[in-house]
Amino acid sequence: MTFVLGGARSGKSRHAEKLVSAFPAPWTYIATAEAFDDEMRERIEHHRARRDSGWLTLEAPLDLADALARVADGQPVLVDCLTLWLTNVMLAELDVEAETRRLAETISRPRGPWFVVSNEVGLGIVPDNALARRFRDAAGRLNQMVAARADHVLFMVAGLPMTIK
Amino acid sequence: MTFVLGGARSGKSRHAEKLVSAFPAPWTYIATAEAFDDEMRERIEHHRARRDSGWLTLEAPLDLADALARVADGQPVLVDCLTLWLTNVMLAELDVEAETRRLAETISRPRGPWFVVSNEVGLGIVPDNALARRFRDAAGRLNQMVAARADHVLFMVAGLPMTIK
Amino acid sequence: MTFVLGGARSGKSRHAEKLVSAFPAPWTYIATAEAFDDEMRERIEHHRARRDSGWLTLEAPLDLADALARVADGQPVLVDCLTLWLTNVMLAELDVEAETRRLAETISRPRGPWFVVSNEVGLGIVPDNALARRFRDAAGRLNQMVAARADHVLFMVAGLPMTIK
Repeated sequence: MTFVLGGARSGKSRHAEKLVSAFPAPWTYIATAEAFDDEMRERIEHHRARRDSGWLTLEAPLDLADALARVADGQPVLVDCLTLWLTNVMLAELDVEAETRRLAETISRPRGPWFVVSNEVGLGIVPDNALARRFRDAAGRLNQMVAARADHVLFMVAGLPMTIK
Repeated sequence: MTFVLGGARSGKSRHAEKLVSAFPAPWTYIATAEAFDDEMRERIEHHRARRDSGWLTLEAPLDLADALARVADGQPVLVDCLTLWLTNVMLAELDVEAETRRLAETISRPRGPWFVVSNEVGLGIVPDNALARRFRDAAGRLNQMVAARADHVLFMVAGLPMTIK
Repeated sequence: MTFVLGGARSGKSRHAEKLVSAFPAPWTYIATAEAFDDEMRERIEHHRARRDSGWLTLEAPLDLADALARVADGQPVLVDCLTLWLTNVMLAELDVEAETRRLAETISRPRGPWFVVSNEVGLGIVPDNALARRFRDAAGRLNQMVAARADHVLFMVAGLPMTIK
């Protein structure tokens, strides 16, 4: 399992797509995004336009562990991305720790070349509002958990991967 | 062309100045900052005080590609910085994509040792307001574009350069 | 002296504790946190629960240089963390530059294996309010100063250390 971590517009998804495409098709794209508003719809389209055929898309705004369980053995997978999944889990007022643990179990036993994308959000100033601070803490813990279980961890800066594990 | 990327107060400008000064004078400093208010004026003075004679200063809050075109062949150049230039382009309501493309063309054909400084702004929590999100996206795309065209990319952390390309 | 820098929830404290514990006990933990509110109290407890016996705790929300001066020669020390100390110094309206300089002098002459933890806060979007911008600038300058004096500097991402010096 390869964990691709980076900031906004750091080229995470694009780089992860490139890595997945090095394996033979078909590839499974597990999208965690939900098209809440125009801005989000635009972002999703922007991402979708970049991928060509050969991709199967699963939408998993919440049941990410289930979606991964449905993937066939040996199949290349791109999960894009954990940060949106965590947002959805928090908005749905699910138990973040329990959901994180369930995801951790699935992710720590990949059944093929799995690539997981996530945002680093903890390198700015402390946010004003308590919800943003809770999110930042939860995202940091989630990223640590996934990085600990990953075989490879890449940190993307300006489209360039730094290998940190 | 060397791209020096980093956070606020990460020592980007200082490090880039050191790298430029390793070449024989005169050096050209292309400043994108505008002294809008006291805070900005203070920052500009703080930067200026660090540079001694031997520097030619061009002010290019918007016409960065033109300023670069005016630099003599072989001349060492420091562009400080792309993030302020992008801010100016957005505030002036110019076409960000067109301006970015024009800059990319100029920058990808350096006619001497050129050093370009920029801020990484995408590693914090998602900003509340839509303009800040648009800026963050545009800055990320600009940084990726420049990094892709650079011969060397440095990521500054606490005054220390990490070589990422 | 080893400087452990990273974002929120990047595993800085945990990693620094592991490094300190590799030395023989007793270890000195210098806490800069003050339990202002429930959220902060919870964070402090969360940190405390991770450390077992063998640790001596000094509280130094402001007099960090004094606390370090009281540590016996050869004693392993963990300072956690500089960012909270800086917050306290600014809230107490002390002279940030003078306090920073005093700390720099003490820290540049470690009398044992000293580990200093700090947050990187400059990689997000420019904060809206002037106080946050002042804090961000001061934190960046402090981190640069400590990194320049450190024998080793680690940058933590998702629980993984990157050696940058």
